[in-house]
Amino acid sequence: MSPARKKSKKKNKRTKKRAASTSVAQRNTVAPLPRKKEMQYLSWDVIEKEEVNPLLHRHFVVGNQSMLARVLLKKGCVVPEHSHVNEQITFIAEGALKFWIDGQVIVVRAGEVLVIPANMPHKAEAVEDTVDFDVFCPPRADWIRKTDRYLR
Amino acid sequence: MSPARKKSKKKNKRTKKRAASTSVAQRNTVAPLPRKKEMQYLSWDVIEKEEVNPLLHRHFVVGNQSMLARVLLKKGCVVPEHSHVNEQITFIAEGALKFWIDGQVIVVRAGEVLVIPANMPHKAEAVEDTVDFDVFCPPRADWIRKTDRYLR
Repeated sequence: MSPARKKSKKKNKRTKKRAASTSVAQRNTVAPLPRKKEMQYLSWDVIEKEEVNPLLHRHFVVGNQSMLARVLLKKGCVVPEHSHVNEQITFIAEGALKFWIDGQVIVVRAGEVLVIPANMPHKAEAVEDTVDFDVFCPPRADWIRKTDRYLR
Repeated sequence: MSPARKKSKKKNKRTKKRAASTSVAQRNTVAPLPRKKEMQYLSWDVIEKEEVNPLLHRHFVVGNQSMLARVLLKKGCVVPEHSHVNEQITFIAEGALKFWIDGQVIVVRAGEVLVIPANMPHKAEAVEDTVDFDVFCPPRADWIRKTDRYLR
């Protein structure tokens, strides 16, 4: 094989590798959401709630880099095990959520916080009626686009 | 000038330009903070508060991509105008904060949310004793390193 052909083959390999890693990145990363330049002033009272299932309602505000969700779970609501590329910070305002995470079972109660690193599988169950605030970074494109199937 | 010298001069210009933009990026971006792979389970009750000034106490939990702070402001506390590269989502849990932002004056009350885009200047004053949650993305390196001078 001529050196030029070898070089070209090598380049093709690199291009393929890059293409493969791009498609992995595309699978794992949220697709671009519209950018917002303006500030947003909102009240939870007027942000429409979505009934994701009869035991789980939620609404959220979305920035460019992060999102804050207010999630209302009725006692007994189960969020099946799942994971996501989005870092999650959960803050319980009222009630309690039992988490199965990283080989542990933890009950996170009002006034407590759980930081869930990107891609860490977790399951949760509401042990009481619960008001939960979740920070996601980047924003959950699947929630915004209503494509999160594990809850529906 | 020889073409080679011209090329070299052009390259130098490019290098200088790159160096300048790097230093702007360094000024505007948080320096790398230590990465955390583990989940974190915490309670606001036990996270030490910092007295930033006599009217403002705060504590926070820090992830890799975002941070959630709980800020306690006494009535009359003024946060002078400032801006930061970090996107901010402010959620008022108790009390009220008056904001001067984007040419407007807005009183954000309990149950209300303000999304402040990156680099948008804002000033705030507590019109009541206030419990405020702030999401920052990326985390505020200046808060973590206690180098935020506008409040001290």
